[in-house]
Amino acid sequence: MFDRIDHIGVVVNSLDEALKTWRDMLGCTLLERQVMPEHGVEVAFVDAANGTIELLAPTDPDSGTARFLASRGEGTHHICFAVTDIEKTLAALQRQGVRLIDETPRQGVHGLVAFVHPKAANGVMIELLQKTPHHP
Amino acid sequence: MFDRIDHIGVVVNSLDEALKTWRDMLGCTLLERQVMPEHGVEVAFVDAANGTIELLAPTDPDSGTARFLASRGEGTHHICFAVTDIEKTLAALQRQGVRLIDETPRQGVHGLVAFVHPKAANGVMIELLQKTPHHP
Repeated sequence: MFDRIDHIGVVVNSLDEALKTWRDMLGCTLLERQVMPEHGVEVAFVDAANGTIELLAPTDPDSGTARFLASRGEGTHHICFAVTDIEKTLAALQRQGVRLIDETPRQGVHGLVAFVHPKAANGVMIELLQKTPHHP
Repeated sequence: MFDRIDHIGVVVNSLDEALKTWRDMLGCTLLERQVMPEHGVEVAFVDAANGTIELLAPTDPDSGTARFLASRGEGTHHICFAVTDIEKTLAALQRQGVRLIDETPRQGVHGLVAFVHPKAANGVMIELLQKTPHHP
């Protein structure tokens, strides 16, 4: 069902502060950084060789990321698995009665994404990602 | 500093129930399962191609895993990065003032391990793992 671990999402208070840790202290290369106003979030991806760490900081106090931060504090937010065909994967999960947040994929940073409800996977928010072909 | 993501640790109430999700519903192959009485925990590793998901269930109500479960509920517990030389990595982290849980490595399931304090890495508990050579 899953092709591989694509990245692990970590919610942080401040992207600048988090980069001091992940890039400067832990030595992970910053791959990209962008503001996503439509999601009320700013993200940075740092390299971990066989996958990446996505640091997410809220830019909108009403965003899901801001609510996560307010209720849980900084920490791991989701695990993203790459899939070949996100529509097929979602259909397979629905046939098995897995509770989804997104029943249809939506556009993410690197392709089509959909989230599985954390209640369906032992508290883990799973993101499915079908990468757009031009992304490495 | 880190060679790659080795696995993501997920604390669960029951390993049998969690395997119904991760193996039976999500289709991840069960790679190994073992009880670790010295850590008060039972673990199962399921395959995610370029890494694994470690499911951990407490067997001892006084274990760290049991305390995590009681305070946070089921969910992601740590990210494990493989390193080539754990002593060197710990020394480098200490030189940078990174707060560690383990200043010296101890024996884990697959090799020498040490944990970085979650306060040092935006709420993420980082495990360092220097695999013993016979492990794939």
